[in-house]
Amino acid sequence: MPDAPSSDGRLKQFDRIIMGIDPGTNVMGYSLLGVAAKKPVMIAMGVIELSRFEDHYMRLRRIYDRVLGLVESFLPDELAIEAPFFGKNVQSMLKLGRAQGVAMAAALSRDVPITEYEPRKIKMAITGNGAASKEQVSAMLQRILKIPDSRMADKLDATDALGAALCHFYETSKPVRHQVTSHSWKDFINKNPDRIV
Amino acid sequence: MPDAPSSDGRLKQFDRIIMGIDPGTNVMGYSLLGVAAKKPVMIAMGVIELSRFEDHYMRLRRIYDRVLGLVESFLPDELAIEAPFFGKNVQSMLKLGRAQGVAMAAALSRDVPITEYEPRKIKMAITGNGAASKEQVSAMLQRILKIPDSRMADKLDATDALGAALCHFYETSKPVRHQVTSHSWKDFINKNPDRIV
Repeated sequence: MPDAPSSDGRLKQFDRIIMGIDPGTNVMGYSLLGVAAKKPVMIAMGVIELSRFEDHYMRLRRIYDRVLGLVESFLPDELAIEAPFFGKNVQSMLKLGRAQGVAMAAALSRDVPITEYEPRKIKMAITGNGAASKEQVSAMLQRILKIPDSRMADKLDATDALGAALCHFYETSKPVRHQVTSHSWKDFINKNPDRIV
Repeated sequence: MPDAPSSDGRLKQFDRIIMGIDPGTNVMGYSLLGVAAKKPVMIAMGVIELSRFEDHYMRLRRIYDRVLGLVESFLPDELAIEAPFFGKNVQSMLKLGRAQGVAMAAALSRDVPITEYEPRKIKMAITGNGAASKEQVSAMLQRILKIPDSRMADKLDATDALGAALCHFYETSKPVRHQVTSHSWKDFINKNPDRIV
Protein backbone atom coordinates (compact mmCIF):
# COMPACT_ATOMS: atom_id res chain seq x y z
CA MET A 1 0.00 0.00 0.00
CA PRO A 2 1.25 3.51 -0.74
CA ASP A 3 1.85 5.91 2.13
CA ALA A 4 -0.94 8.19 3.22
CA PRO A 5 -1.46 11.26 1.04
CA SER A 6 -0.10 14.54 2.37
CA SER A 7 -2.36 17.35 3.51
CA ASP A 8 -2.98 18.41 -0.10
CA GLY A 9 -3.95 14.86 -1.04
CA ARG A 10 -0.71 14.14 -2.86
CA LEU A 11 1.41 11.08 -2.20
CA LYS A 12 4.30 13.01 -0.75
CA GLN A 13 7.14 10.59 -1.41
CA PHE A 14 6.84 11.04 -5.19
CA ASP A 15 8.35 13.83 -7.27
CA ARG A 16 5.92 13.15 -10.05
CA ILE A 17 2.81 11.04 -10.59
CA ILE A 18 1.77 9.77 -14.03
CA MET A 19 -1.71 8.41 -14.55
CA GLY A 20 -2.21 5.85 -17.30
CA ILE A 21 -5.54 5.02 -18.87
CA ASP A 22 -6.66 2.46 -21.41
CA PRO A 23 -10.22 3.55 -22.19
CA GLY A 24 -12.61 1.06 -23.67
CA THR A 25 -16.35 0.77 -23.86
CA ASN A 26 -16.55 -2.53 -21.92
CA VAL A 27 -13.61 -2.29 -19.57
CA MET A 28 -11.36 0.63 -18.70
CA GLY A 29 -7.92 0.06 -17.24
CA TYR A 30 -6.16 2.64 -15.09
CA SER A 31 -2.84 2.95 -13.34
CA LEU A 32 -0.89 5.39 -11.20
CA LEU A 33 2.86 5.44 -11.59
CA GLY A 34 4.94 7.43 -9.11
CA VAL A 35 8.46 8.68 -9.75
CA ALA A 36 10.83 8.86 -6.76
CA ALA A 37 14.55 9.53 -7.19
CA LYS A 38 14.02 9.18 -10.97
CA LYS A 39 12.75 5.61 -10.50
CA PRO A 40 9.21 4.56 -11.52
CA VAL A 41 7.05 2.85 -8.88
CA MET A 42 3.60 1.34 -9.38
CA ILE A 43 1.24 3.02 -6.90
CA ALA A 44 -2.08 1.59 -8.01
CA MET A 45 -3.70 -0.17 -10.92
CA GLY A 46 -7.16 -1.46 -11.57
CA VAL A 47 -10.04 -2.10 -13.88
CA ILE A 48 -13.34 -0.29 -14.17
CA GLU A 49 -15.98 -2.76 -15.31
CA LEU A 50 -18.51 -1.15 -17.63
CA SER A 51 -20.27 -4.14 -19.16
CA ARG A 52 -22.76 -4.39 -16.29
CA PHE A 53 -24.23 -1.06 -17.41
CA GLU A 54 -26.43 -1.67 -20.40
CA ASP A 55 -27.00 2.02 -20.98
CA HIS A 56 -24.31 3.70 -23.07
CA TYR A 57 -24.62 6.96 -21.10
CA MET A 58 -24.28 5.15 -17.78
CA ARG A 59 -20.98 3.79 -19.02
CA LEU A 60 -19.76 7.23 -20.08
CA ARG A 61 -20.90 8.68 -16.78
CA ARG A 62 -19.10 5.92 -14.91
CA ILE A 63 -15.85 6.56 -16.82
CA TYR A 64 -16.09 10.29 -16.11
CA ASP A 65 -16.81 9.82 -12.41
CA ARG A 66 -14.08 7.25 -11.86
CA VAL A 67 -11.40 9.14 -13.79
CA LEU A 68 -12.30 12.34 -11.96
CA GLY A 69 -12.17 10.45 -8.66
CA LEU A 70 -8.71 9.10 -9.46
CA VAL A 71 -7.47 12.54 -10.55
CA GLU A 72 -8.75 14.09 -7.32
CA SER A 73 -7.36 11.26 -5.14
CA PHE A 74 -3.88 11.03 -6.64
CA LEU A 75 -3.40 14.49 -8.20
CA PRO A 76 -1.39 13.17 -11.16
CA ASP A 77 0.89 15.59 -13.02
CA GLU A 78 0.18 14.02 -16.38
CA LEU A 79 -2.17 11.62 -18.08
CA ALA A 80 -0.94 9.06 -20.62
CA ILE A 81 -3.65 7.41 -22.71
CA GLU A 82 -3.41 4.31 -24.82
CA ALA A 83 -5.16 5.44 -27.98
CA PRO A 84 -5.51 3.28 -31.08
CA PHE A 85 -5.89 5.46 -34.17
CA PHE A 86 -7.32 2.76 -36.35
CA GLY A 87 -10.24 0.49 -35.67
CA LYS A 88 -12.46 -2.03 -37.31
CA ASN A 89 -15.28 0.29 -38.28
CA VAL A 90 -16.68 3.79 -37.86
CA GLN A 91 -19.26 2.64 -35.30
CA SER A 92 -16.69 1.22 -32.91
CA MET A 93 -14.41 4.23 -33.41
CA LEU A 94 -17.24 6.64 -32.54
CA LYS A 95 -17.89 4.72 -29.32
CA LEU A 96 -14.20 4.53 -28.51
CA GLY A 97 -13.89 8.26 -29.20
CA ARG A 98 -16.69 8.96 -26.74
CA ALA A 99 -15.08 6.82 -24.04
CA GLN A 100 -11.76 8.61 -24.63
CA GLY A 101 -13.56 11.96 -24.69
CA VAL A 102 -15.22 11.62 -21.28
CA ALA A 103 -11.97 10.33 -19.73
CA MET A 104 -10.11 13.28 -21.27
CA ALA A 105 -12.78 15.72 -20.07
CA ALA A 106 -12.25 14.58 -16.48
CA ALA A 107 -8.48 15.19 -16.78
CA LEU A 108 -8.79 18.46 -18.71
CA SER A 109 -11.30 19.80 -16.18
CA ARG A 110 -8.51 19.57 -13.59
CA ASP A 111 -5.74 20.93 -15.87
CA VAL A 112 -3.98 17.58 -16.25
CA PRO A 113 -2.09 17.56 -19.58
CA ILE A 114 -2.67 14.55 -21.84
CA THR A 115 -0.34 12.58 -24.06
CA GLU A 116 -1.51 9.74 -26.30
CA TYR A 117 0.42 6.66 -27.25
CA GLU A 118 -0.47 4.10 -29.88
CA PRO A 119 -0.58 0.50 -28.60
CA ARG A 120 2.37 -0.45 -30.81
CA LYS A 121 4.48 2.35 -29.38
CA ILE A 122 3.71 1.24 -25.81
CA LYS A 123 4.56 -2.40 -26.53
CA MET A 124 7.80 -1.31 -28.18
CA ALA A 125 8.76 0.89 -25.22
CA ILE A 126 8.09 -1.84 -22.65
CA THR A 127 9.20 -5.02 -24.40
CA GLY A 128 11.24 -3.83 -27.40
CA ASN A 129 8.70 -5.54 -29.66
CA GLY A 130 5.79 -3.54 -31.12
CA ALA A 131 3.82 -6.73 -31.69
CA ALA A 132 4.24 -8.17 -28.17
CA SER A 133 1.28 -9.99 -26.61
CA LYS A 134 -0.66 -8.63 -23.63
CA GLU A 135 0.93 -11.36 -21.50
CA GLN A 136 4.45 -10.39 -22.59
CA VAL A 137 3.78 -6.71 -21.79
CA SER A 138 2.32 -7.70 -18.43
CA ALA A 139 5.28 -9.96 -17.54
CA MET A 140 7.79 -7.25 -18.49
CA LEU A 141 5.94 -4.57 -16.49
CA GLN A 142 5.90 -6.86 -13.46
CA ARG A 143 9.66 -7.41 -13.78
CA ILE A 144 10.60 -3.75 -14.43
CA LEU A 145 8.42 -2.42 -11.62
CA LYS A 146 8.99 -5.38 -9.25
CA ILE A 147 5.28 -5.89 -8.70
CA PRO A 148 4.35 -8.86 -6.46
CA ASP A 149 2.17 -11.55 -8.07
CA SER A 150 -0.64 -10.76 -5.62
CA ARG A 151 -0.98 -7.23 -7.00
CA MET A 152 -1.00 -8.41 -10.63
CA ALA A 153 -3.77 -10.98 -10.18
CA ASP A 154 -6.94 -10.37 -12.21
CA LYS A 155 -5.54 -7.14 -13.54
CA LEU A 156 -4.47 -8.04 -17.05
CA ASP A 157 -6.80 -5.39 -18.42
CA ALA A 158 -5.00 -2.77 -16.35
CA THR A 159 -1.54 -3.57 -17.69
CA ASP A 160 -2.07 -1.59 -20.91
CA ALA A 161 -2.83 1.44 -18.76
CA LEU A 162 0.30 0.80 -16.70
CA GLY A 163 2.22 0.34 -19.94
CA ALA A 164 0.99 3.73 -21.17
CA ALA A 165 2.15 5.42 -17.95
CA LEU A 166 5.59 3.73 -18.05
CA CYS A 167 5.96 4.50 -21.77
CA HIS A 168 5.26 8.16 -20.97
CA PHE A 169 7.84 8.07 -18.19
CA TYR A 170 10.47 6.70 -20.63
CA GLU A 171 9.53 9.18 -23.36
CA THR A 172 9.81 12.16 -21.04
CA SER A 173 12.98 10.92 -19.32
CA LYS A 174 15.13 10.45 -22.42
CA PRO A 175 18.57 12.10 -22.22
CA VAL A 176 17.99 13.86 -25.55
CA ARG A 177 14.53 14.94 -24.81
CA HIS A 178 11.83 14.85 -27.43
CA GLN A 179 9.96 18.04 -28.08
CA VAL A 180 7.16 17.57 -25.58
CA THR A 181 4.21 19.65 -26.64
CA SER A 182 2.53 21.19 -23.67
CA HIS A 183 -1.20 20.74 -23.56
CA SER A 184 -1.76 22.76 -20.43
CA TRP A 185 -4.19 25.63 -20.68
CA LYS A 186 -2.01 27.85 -18.50
CA ASP A 187 1.05 27.23 -20.68
CA PHE A 188 -0.97 27.99 -23.76
CA ILE A 189 -2.12 31.32 -22.34
CA ASN A 190 1.40 32.17 -21.22
CA LYS A 191 2.72 31.46 -24.70
CA ASN A 192 -0.17 33.19 -26.47
CA PRO A 193 -1.14 36.24 -24.38
CA ASP A 194 -2.71 37.86 -27.46
CA ARG A 195 -5.20 35.02 -27.76
CA ILE A 196 -7.04 35.90 -24.55
CA VAL A 197 -10.46 37.23 -25.50
CA MET B 1 -33.23 39.05 -24.37
CA PRO B 2 -34.70 36.50 -21.97
CA ASP B 3 -35.85 37.61 -18.53
CA ALA B 4 -33.39 37.51 -15.69
CA PRO B 5 -32.85 34.08 -14.16
CA SER B 6 -34.53 33.38 -10.82
CA SER B 7 -32.55 33.02 -7.61
CA ASP B 8 -31.60 29.44 -8.50
CA GLY B 9 -30.31 30.57 -11.89
CA ARG B 10 -33.26 29.18 -13.82
CA LEU B 11 -35.25 31.20 -16.33
CA LYS B 12 -38.42 31.16 -14.28
CA GLN B 13 -40.97 31.68 -17.03
CA PHE B 14 -40.24 28.27 -18.56
CA ASP B 15 -41.68 24.94 -17.44
CA ARG B 16 -38.88 23.11 -19.16
CA ILE B 17 -35.61 23.97 -20.85
CA ILE B 18 -34.08 21.80 -23.57
CA MET B 19 -30.47 22.29 -24.58
CA GLY B 20 -29.50 21.36 -28.12
CA ILE B 21 -25.94 20.69 -29.23
CA ASP B 22 -24.34 19.95 -32.57
CA PRO B 23 -20.81 18.96 -31.61
CA GLY B 24 -18.10 19.17 -34.20
CA THR B 25 -14.34 19.41 -34.12
CA ASN B 26 -14.15 22.80 -35.88
CA VAL B 27 -17.38 24.48 -34.81
CA MET B 28 -19.89 23.54 -32.15
CA GLY B 29 -23.45 24.84 -32.30
CA TYR B 30 -25.60 25.18 -29.21
CA SER B 31 -29.14 26.28 -28.45
CA LEU B 32 -31.48 26.68 -25.50
CA LEU B 33 -35.15 26.08 -26.10
CA GLY B 34 -37.65 27.00 -23.41
CA VAL B 35 -41.14 25.56 -23.10
CA ALA B 36 -43.85 27.83 -21.69
CA ALA B 37 -47.55 26.87 -21.78
CA LYS B 38 -46.54 23.90 -23.98
CA LYS B 39 -45.08 26.24 -26.60
CA PRO B 40 -41.40 26.19 -27.59
CA VAL B 41 -39.45 29.46 -27.43
CA MET B 42 -35.87 30.05 -28.55
CA ILE B 43 -33.95 31.42 -25.55
CA ALA B 44 -30.43 31.47 -26.94
CA MET B 45 -28.35 30.04 -29.75
CA GLY B 46 -24.75 30.40 -30.75
CA VAL B 47 -21.59 28.97 -32.13
CA ILE B 48 -18.41 27.98 -30.35
CA GLU B 49 -15.49 28.49 -32.73
CA LEU B 50 -12.83 25.83 -32.27
CA SER B 51 -10.71 26.23 -35.39
CA ARG B 52 -8.56 28.95 -33.82
CA PHE B 53 -7.20 26.35 -31.39
CA GLU B 54 -4.62 24.28 -33.20
CA ASP B 55 -4.23 21.88 -30.30
CA HIS B 56 -6.76 19.05 -30.29
CA TYR B 57 -6.92 19.01 -26.46
CA MET B 58 -7.52 22.75 -26.33
CA ARG B 59 -10.55 22.21 -28.51
CA LEU B 60 -11.85 19.43 -26.28
CA ARG B 61 -11.21 21.53 -23.20
CA ARG B 62 -13.03 24.45 -24.79
CA ILE B 63 -16.06 22.28 -25.62
CA TYR B 64 -16.16 20.93 -22.07
CA ASP B 65 -15.86 24.38 -20.47
CA ARG B 66 -18.46 26.01 -22.70
CA VAL B 67 -21.02 23.21 -22.41
CA LEU B 68 -20.56 23.12 -18.64
CA GLY B 69 -20.95 26.92 -18.54
CA LEU B 70 -24.20 26.72 -20.53
CA VAL B 71 -25.52 23.90 -18.33
CA GLU B 72 -24.75 25.90 -15.19
CA SER B 73 -26.21 29.15 -16.62
CA PHE B 74 -29.46 27.77 -18.01
CA LEU B 75 -29.98 24.61 -15.94
CA PRO B 76 -31.50 22.64 -18.83
CA ASP B 77 -33.72 19.65 -18.03
CA GLU B 78 -32.52 17.66 -21.01
CA LEU B 79 -29.82 17.64 -23.64
CA ALA B 80 -30.56 16.76 -27.26
CA ILE B 81 -27.51 16.04 -29.42
CA GLU B 82 -27.27 15.88 -33.17
CA ALA B 83 -25.25 12.72 -33.62
CA PRO B 84 -24.37 11.25 -37.01
CA PHE B 85 -23.79 7.52 -36.71
CA PHE B 86 -21.92 7.18 -39.95
CA GLY B 87 -18.96 9.14 -41.19
CA LYS B 88 -16.41 9.19 -43.91
CA ASN B 89 -13.63 7.37 -42.11
CA VAL B 90 -12.54 5.97 -38.77
CA GLN B 91 -10.22 8.93 -38.10
CA SER B 92 -12.96 11.54 -38.37
CA MET B 93 -15.36 9.37 -36.36
CA LEU B 94 -12.83 9.02 -33.54
CA LYS B 95 -12.43 12.80 -33.41
CA LEU B 96 -16.18 13.35 -33.58
CA GLY B 97 -16.66 10.77 -30.82
CA ARG B 98 -14.22 12.67 -28.62
CA ALA B 99 -16.00 15.98 -29.24
CA GLN B 100 -19.33 14.31 -28.42
CA GLY B 101 -17.78 12.62 -25.39
CA VAL B 102 -16.51 15.80 -23.72
CA ALA B 103 -19.83 17.58 -24.40
CA MET B 104 -21.69 14.60 -22.92
CA ALA B 105 -19.35 14.50 -19.91
CA ALA B 106 -20.23 18.11 -19.09
CA ALA B 107 -23.96 17.29 -19.18
CA LEU B 108 -23.65 13.95 -17.36
CA SER B 109 -21.56 15.57 -14.61
CA ARG B 110 -24.63 17.70 -13.81
CA ASP B 111 -27.19 14.88 -14.16
CA VAL B 112 -28.65 16.19 -17.41
CA PRO B 113 -30.13 13.26 -19.38
CA ILE B 114 -29.07 12.95 -23.03
CA THR B 115 -31.00 11.95 -26.13
CA GLU B 116 -29.36 11.63 -29.54
CA TYR B 117 -30.94 12.33 -32.89
CA GLU B 118 -29.57 11.51 -36.29
CA PRO B 119 -29.36 14.49 -38.68
CA ARG B 120 -31.94 12.93 -40.98
CA LYS B 121 -34.42 12.53 -38.12
CA ILE B 122 -34.01 16.18 -37.14
CA LYS B 123 -34.50 17.43 -40.70
CA MET B 124 -37.59 15.25 -41.02
CA ALA B 125 -39.05 16.54 -37.75
CA ILE B 126 -38.50 20.19 -38.65
CA THR B 127 -39.19 20.31 -42.39
CA GLY B 128 -40.92 17.02 -43.18
CA ASN B 129 -38.01 16.18 -45.48
CA GLY B 130 -35.13 14.07 -44.19
CA ALA B 131 -32.87 15.39 -46.95
CA ALA B 132 -33.60 19.11 -46.41
CA SER B 133 -30.73 21.58 -46.77
CA LYS B 134 -29.25 23.52 -43.84
CA GLU B 135 -30.90 26.67 -45.26
CA GLN B 136 -34.32 24.99 -45.41
CA VAL B 137 -34.01 23.78 -41.81
CA SER B 138 -32.90 27.26 -40.74
CA ALA B 139 -35.79 29.00 -42.54
CA MET B 140 -38.33 26.60 -41.05
CA LEU B 141 -36.95 27.00 -37.53
CA GLN B 142 -37.11 30.78 -37.89
CA ARG B 143 -40.74 30.55 -38.97
CA ILE B 144 -41.85 28.03 -36.32
CA LEU B 145 -40.12 29.83 -33.46
CA LYS B 146 -40.77 33.37 -34.81
CA ILE B 147 -37.13 34.35 -34.52
CA PRO B 148 -36.28 37.87 -35.74
CA ASP B 149 -33.72 38.08 -38.59
CA SER B 150 -31.29 39.91 -36.32
CA ARG B 151 -31.02 36.90 -34.01
CA MET B 152 -30.49 34.45 -36.88
CA ALA B 153 -27.62 36.38 -38.50
CA ASP B 154 -24.29 34.54 -38.66
CA LYS B 155 -25.74 31.62 -36.77
CA LEU B 156 -26.32 29.05 -39.48
CA ASP B 157 -24.02 26.64 -37.66
CA ALA B 158 -26.25 26.90 -34.59
CA THR B 159 -29.45 25.94 -36.38
CA ASP B 160 -28.67 22.22 -36.32
CA ALA B 161 -28.40 22.49 -32.55
CA LEU B 162 -31.70 24.36 -32.40
CA GLY B 163 -33.18 21.73 -34.71
CA ALA B 164 -32.04 18.98 -32.31
CA ALA B 165 -33.70 20.75 -29.36
CA LEU B 166 -36.97 21.32 -31.24
CA CYS B 167 -36.95 17.73 -32.57
CA HIS B 168 -36.60 16.53 -28.96
CA PHE B 169 -39.48 18.77 -27.91
CA TYR B 170 -41.69 17.24 -30.64
CA GLU B 171 -40.59 13.69 -29.84
CA THR B 172 -41.35 14.07 -26.13
CA SER B 173 -44.62 15.96 -26.68
CA LYS B 174 -46.34 13.40 -28.90
CA PRO B 175 -49.86 12.46 -27.74
CA VAL B 176 -48.96 8.75 -27.85
CA ARG B 177 -45.69 9.11 -26.14
CA HIS B 178 -42.68 7.11 -27.19
CA GLN B 179 -40.96 5.08 -24.55
CA VAL B 180 -38.44 7.65 -23.36
CA THR B 181 -35.58 5.88 -21.70
CA SER B 182 -34.33 7.77 -18.71
CA HIS B 183 -30.63 8.32 -18.66
CA SER B 184 -30.51 10.10 -15.35
CA TRP B 185 -28.23 8.63 -12.76
CA LYS B 186 -30.70 9.33 -9.96
CA ASP B 187 -33.50 7.52 -11.81
CA PHE B 188 -31.19 4.60 -12.41
CA ILE B 189 -30.36 4.35 -8.72
CA ASN B 190 -34.02 4.65 -7.77
CA LYS B 191 -34.91 1.85 -10.16
CA ASN B 192 -31.93 -0.31 -9.21
CA PRO B 193 -31.35 0.13 -5.46
CA ASP B 194 -29.54 -3.21 -5.34
CA ARG B 195 -26.88 -1.93 -7.73
CA ILE B 196 -25.48 0.57 -5.26
CA VAL B 197 -22.05 -0.68 -4.24
